[in-house]
Amino acid sequence: MLVETVLTADQANPQKLRGKTVIILDVLRAATNIVNALANGCEEVIPALTIKEALSLAKSLELGSYLLGGERKREKIQGFDLGNSPGEYISEKVKGKKIIITTTNGTKAIGQAVLADHILIGSLLNVSTVGRYSLSLAKDIIILCSGTRGCFSLEDSIAAGSLVDYLIQKEANLILDDLSLALRQLYKSYFPRLLEPLSISENGRSLLKMGKEEDVKFAAQLDIYQVVPIWNQGKIKLIS
Amino acid sequence: MLVETVLTADQANPQKLRGKTVIILDVLRAATNIVNALANGCEEVIPALTIKEALSLAKSLELGSYLLGGERKREKIQGFDLGNSPGEYISEKVKGKKIIITTTNGTKAIGQAVLADHILIGSLLNVSTVGRYSLSLAKDIIILCSGTRGCFSLEDSIAAGSLVDYLIQKEANLILDDLSLALRQLYKSYFPRLLEPLSISENGRSLLKMGKEEDVKFAAQLDIYQVVPIWNQGKIKLIS
Repeated sequence: MLVETVLTADQANPQKLRGKTVIILDVLRAATNIVNALANGCEEVIPALTIKEALSLAKSLELGSYLLGGERKREKIQGFDLGNSPGEYISEKVKGKKIIITTTNGTKAIGQAVLADHILIGSLLNVSTVGRYSLSLAKDIIILCSGTRGCFSLEDSIAAGSLVDYLIQKEANLILDDLSLALRQLYKSYFPRLLEPLSISENGRSLLKMGKEEDVKFAAQLDIYQVVPIWNQGKIKLIS
Repeated sequence: MLVETVLTADQANPQKLRGKTVIILDVLRAATNIVNALANGCEEVIPALTIKEALSLAKSLELGSYLLGGERKREKIQGFDLGNSPGEYISEKVKGKKIIITTTNGTKAIGQAVLADHILIGSLLNVSTVGRYSLSLAKDIIILCSGTRGCFSLEDSIAAGSLVDYLIQKEANLILDDLSLALRQLYKSYFPRLLEPLSISENGRSLLKMGKEEDVKFAAQLDIYQVVPIWNQGKIKLIS
């Protein structure tokens, strides 16, 4: 069983993901919010690439059954119900609702992975549970970091390293590519101080400057949820 | 002053390298050999992308003044004087000679960087000296890892991390991208055991399997040479 890591959505070759298990990571902040929303009782998350697409999807749903969420340049989109802070995706707001979410990087990564057999959504919040489930699928695993505007992001690579570390501890015979090896080592060099790399990352520094320290702290929590969000036919739901 | 790292030649955007200082790293084994050859008195290294191009370049040179070197799939090219093992690039063989060298990854990286103001060639053998010189040029620095067949290679990323570590210690005001931050941390997590990441890398493992342990050990030596190879108009020479 192979484990390979891809550092940005742009670098993913959709054909090479065919038939594999793809785990999409986007720590600051889309996947963290998706995991958090679903763990808090949100019925399903519908990712959209553009604001226009999100509004168009909303028209097909019953009023009151859904919320619109997402960000552009780290700020809430005008007229949307939710921005991109985990503090907004609480049970009181999201329980029993569908959430249409548009983000710049995570949604793009999903688009690149549509030929995969399974698309799982992970963050530090649920990394071990996603890792355990991905091993049970017994297919080669591609860890797809969303990255930021086409570039490497430190926080996603820490989550990737954490995932690799989990996988290799559970299944010693895995074959890791150089990148997975490197990110595991990177993760271990920070562990358990995961807030440190998140805070010095480009995204983290921007969020801290905007006063969103709580968002960074929230995203740095390891394995607080035992949930596996899976994408299927345009929707992300929890595996029961 | 910005420092950014690019993980493979393919990922480099030639237009974005324009006007900058580009440092090309290829630890196993092209840059290591180029640095070693020049440090051992080789007059200049002429990189070629293909075997055909190397043979064509040779025709323009005086017989006896040059050597042909390089590899395909980690083996010496038929009819060439030198392969890709540092043990071949010794003073007795290379002193006063030109070397036309063709390699799969390093040469490609040079091709991507031709719009840069300066193209320096680095390996672990001379990383601090190249770092010092690049700071003196006072331009934004792009660290361009050659990678292997378009993929990330652990050994180049260790050299990149070592270079970043040197740069930031000498010039605290540098702005590092997330990747440079991550590779510095990765490097520091291995230091001083640099043979370890080289040995577990995909390239390293292949070389060890082929009995080329000495090549890996040689490439893992930090700062044994104080030389700065620079590419100019198709040739790599030492800065005097």
